[in-house]
Amino acid sequence: MKYQIDVQTRSKEDFVDITQQVRDCVRKSGVQNGVCVLFVPHATAGLTVNENWDPSVKADTLATLDRLVPWRANYQHVEGNAAAHIKSCLVGTSETLLVDAGNLVLGTWQGVFLAEFHGPRRRQVLVRVIPDVEAR
Amino acid sequence: MKYQIDVQTRSKEDFVDITQQVRDCVRKSGVQNGVCVLFVPHATAGLTVNENWDPSVKADTLATLDRLVPWRANYQHVEGNAAAHIKSCLVGTSETLLVDAGNLVLGTWQGVFLAEFHGPRRRQVLVRVIPDVEAR
Amino acid sequence: MKYQIDVQTRSKEDFVDITQQVRDCVRKSGVQNGVCVLFVPHATAGLTVNENWDPSVKADTLATLDRLVPWRANYQHVEGNAAAHIKSCLVGTSETLLVDAGNLVLGTWQGVFLAEFHGPRRRQVLVRVIPDVEAR
Repeated sequence: MKYQIDVQTRSKEDFVDITQQVRDCVRKSGVQNGVCVLFVPHATAGLTVNENWDPSVKADTLATLDRLVPWRANYQHVEGNAAAHIKSCLVGTSETLLVDAGNLVLGTWQGVFLAEFHGPRRRQVLVRVIPDVEAR
Repeated sequence: MKYQIDVQTRSKEDFVDITQQVRDCVRKSGVQNGVCVLFVPHATAGLTVNENWDPSVKADTLATLDRLVPWRANYQHVEGNAAAHIKSCLVGTSETLLVDAGNLVLGTWQGVFLAEFHGPRRRQVLVRVIPDVEAR
Repeated sequence: MKYQIDVQTRSKEDFVDITQQVRDCVRKSGVQNGVCVLFVPHATAGLTVNENWDPSVKADTLATLDRLVPWRANYQHVEGNAAAHIKSCLVGTSETLLVDAGNLVLGTWQGVFLAEFHGPRRRQVLVRVIPDVEAR
């Protein structure tokens, strides 16, 4: 019950909505009740759950992260992408979601996003859906 | 082994201690060893584990978040609560805790908090307790 | 399938690379496919996954956190370590990683770090490795 979601990001910084792909993984797994663990194997990206109805939320979040952790500052990291690493640390590289009656559980306004902090790149999101004991 | 904790928050921003309710879920589940996954299905709230002994910690944390992500700024989001969404992104909407010998594992000074960023509202925390293979 | 990693931190603030110790826990567990949950039972520490190749990444991240959440500010918390609690909230106290074919799954440049925000101290990282249903 392991899956991979491939994402081609289109800009330097972006939140890419992967909710439908995560829902598909849960459906394919056949798990009725359990958890869905997502992990992004990249040190300049992250995962977040937030409102996916109004796209201004992602614009505001990216702008705020950029104000708090500007791309250019007095960083030591030689590759020039220290800001992307720091944002990854703040946003996090994993999410654990719940699965109920065969469906991913999210609030009405919530979606799952890959957070790109140094794109555009090809990114992967690794997924594992684990059944609770009730489902066995 | 699925539970829901209902929380009525009392102010615009707050950290509500739900440690006892989470402990109760673990006890009711009967799981001896495993994990306890919490998820908040709201895009303007979060979950955090932090000191629950001195209430000034939550006051300092909320004040710092407010300084970093002020309620009024040059946001695009039309609903006026962009700051709450951004804080939710920084604090996170899920927590995975450990269960050992039938008890929730927390450090001496740690508690589990629902983080309210746009209250007061009725909020839910969804809980699933999953046994490790040892417990089967 | 439960383990404890002991860490002696050496300075007030540090990211200590515990990747090898986490890999050892996964190997000892014998779990082929599943998840590895880490939890730090301390309210002034955290866990993060980030680049572990160039040590300047951790220096840049700690310096940025210190700029955003300075040690001395107008905090109420009497113990004087409010900043450490707030950083713990931002970075998080748990990580959920994936296990695949008996190995911890990390990106090429990623490592797992204990984040110390009020050291030097002896710290623990609690680990549980849970098999997916495929492995049973």
